[in-house]
Amino acid sequence: MNAAPPTTPALDLTSDVLALTRALCDVPSVSGDETRLADLVETALRALPHLEVLRDGDAVMARTHLGRAERVVVAGHLDTVPVAANLPTRLLGEGAAAELWGRGTVDMKGGVAVQLACAAAVTEPVRDVTWVFYDHEEVASELNGLGRLVRHHPEWLRADLAVLCEPTSGAIEGGCNGTLRVEVTLPGRAAHSARAWRGVNAIHAAAPLLQALADHPAEEVEVDGLTYRESLSAVLITGGIATNVVPDRCVVTVNYRFAPALSPQEAVDRVRALVDGLGIPGAQVEVTDLAPGARPGLDHPAAAAFAATVQRLTGRTPAAKVGWTDVARFAELGVPAVNFGPGDPSLAHADDERCPVADLDTCFFALRTWLTEPTG
Amino acid sequence: MNAAPPTTPALDLTSDVLALTRALCDVPSVSGDETRLADLVETALRALPHLEVLRDGDAVMARTHLGRAERVVVAGHLDTVPVAANLPTRLLGEGAAAELWGRGTVDMKGGVAVQLACAAAVTEPVRDVTWVFYDHEEVASELNGLGRLVRHHPEWLRADLAVLCEPTSGAIEGGCNGTLRVEVTLPGRAAHSARAWRGVNAIHAAAPLLQALADHPAEEVEVDGLTYRESLSAVLITGGIATNVVPDRCVVTVNYRFAPALSPQEAVDRVRALVDGLGIPGAQVEVTDLAPGARPGLDHPAAAAFAATVQRLTGRTPAAKVGWTDVARFAELGVPAVNFGPGDPSLAHADDERCPVADLDTCFFALRTWLTEPTG
Repeated sequence: MNAAPPTTPALDLTSDVLALTRALCDVPSVSGDETRLADLVETALRALPHLEVLRDGDAVMARTHLGRAERVVVAGHLDTVPVAANLPTRLLGEGAAAELWGRGTVDMKGGVAVQLACAAAVTEPVRDVTWVFYDHEEVASELNGLGRLVRHHPEWLRADLAVLCEPTSGAIEGGCNGTLRVEVTLPGRAAHSARAWRGVNAIHAAAPLLQALADHPAEEVEVDGLTYRESLSAVLITGGIATNVVPDRCVVTVNYRFAPALSPQEAVDRVRALVDGLGIPGAQVEVTDLAPGARPGLDHPAAAAFAATVQRLTGRTPAAKVGWTDVARFAELGVPAVNFGPGDPSLAHADDERCPVADLDTCFFALRTWLTEPTG
Repeated sequence: MNAAPPTTPALDLTSDVLALTRALCDVPSVSGDETRLADLVETALRALPHLEVLRDGDAVMARTHLGRAERVVVAGHLDTVPVAANLPTRLLGEGAAAELWGRGTVDMKGGVAVQLACAAAVTEPVRDVTWVFYDHEEVASELNGLGRLVRHHPEWLRADLAVLCEPTSGAIEGGCNGTLRVEVTLPGRAAHSARAWRGVNAIHAAAPLLQALADHPAEEVEVDGLTYRESLSAVLITGGIATNVVPDRCVVTVNYRFAPALSPQEAVDRVRALVDGLGIPGAQVEVTDLAPGARPGLDHPAAAAFAATVQRLTGRTPAAKVGWTDVARFAELGVPAVNFGPGDPSLAHADDERCPVADLDTCFFALRTWLTEPTG
């Protein structure tokens, strides 16, 4: 006889955002294991008569049909990186200092809770809304649930603006840097290390490349009024096969986070030029990962209105997003997109991931206001 | 019922050196698997009435007791590195160009065959001889069979001179370089690679170290009249944990092959000074392997006589040995030691390992002559 499956209480979308965040976090949903949480989200949304609900794999979408002049997508992912003994959630501190600790509180079930609470609370938004909850954001790009929705249901993603509830500490962060990874392979010629002069040392050959990366400044690039700071880093290095052999191969993996002023091809050209300029004999550059950046799009009226609402309610001015996020997928669809969500993004994936309770309330309040205040 | 063990023909020590080398090579004896070959060697030596035979694990020793004024040790190891589909042996080429191909032909069953053929042929040597055949030379130093014999039977290794039949293409190579390995750990501070300026990149920190190694000249050092060429090489490098994280650790393994003019401690001091002089914050140097070199000892009368015999018969002058060999173990016992054996040492461990047949004959002839010609 099989044991009964574990029972999880249904999500109560009318509870406060903190309680909803805890409920979401305490159902682990590491990438690839989102079904249970997606089922809970789907069930809760289907109970709301003002929403049409769609399910695709472990992604759930829900939308209003009020015939408004504008439609906005508000999106978030259901999965997290692996749990690091940081579940169930714990609430520490009091009052303005209260923080919810645990995997997913920042990246990004706090944001998902804000979405779900607004989806339930705002039955007649001034802008039609499409709520999107998707899977597989924290793993390889080809598995990404939002990418799958773009392929399967592009019509559901049409909108004037997309808001991605990734953590921004409650500020609007526009666009995102692109990201490029290349493997630079430095060749050598093997020899016994007791006769090193007979070989060519591939690890030694990496010296000028590493020095050039060390010397490269973190450039600041202004795009549509926001300042994007770039990064160029060696992230992995490996070379050598034995402790008595002059290595004939060294591979340096370089990650370039480039401002959205550059196209992906321009980013590749820039890194190739840097490597080629070093004149290392036989050095090869292979692109292993490339995702475009997204311009901030704050010149779009719907985006400008959202930015104004957030600034009025929180005093926070829009900033550039330096990490790559799925806003770039909306940018590719021609939908301007911004990031806006609770939690400090630098705590995403950290063992001590934790979200200020005040952030949860602020984000819920700002999003609800934007969706309910009469449009200008 | 168990299958009968494979039968291997007994070794015929009166066959020519080529046939004996083939017979030895065609009994695979990768380190740790030497028992079958050691049994064959022991059986063959016990059949020689002029020798006293001793067995310790898979090492076999045999010696004469003729009351000569001098005693020499002639030593070789029975094990090989793993077979690379290069057995059984093949004889290719003809006449002076004939070569015996296969694992062990160079390192060092050709030398062992020379030893065994001389042990059988020279029943009344002008110098008393201790023949040593040992195990586990190609693996970690603490397993080394010669090291075990030094601990278990030091009296058997007392001699005026030791000849190690490692490959030298039939020349005398005196002493050996020492070898030092250190791991240089470069620290950093992790950060997301989208915000690289918040971290400290440990891979970038390796740049000045790799450049210093690249710039370091292969110094030549004269010791007791022979010139030793040194090598200083990065042999391994590893750093980074993920393609989106600024690495907080990079480890460079450096191998220094130092002339026997330096003590082991002096070699360590020199590498530490090089690293310290770079001023890389937090760089740590850890010694992981250290073996002393051996001075050539060609000023000893027995060594000088052997060198003179080889030079007269082959025209080859003594040279320095740059690779580390077990001659250093004899040096530690106070026994001067030289390398002398058939085969090009640069083909040791190679997939195309092969030994000129002429080398086998030359080495047998030179060793037999030295052991039979009246001493001066």
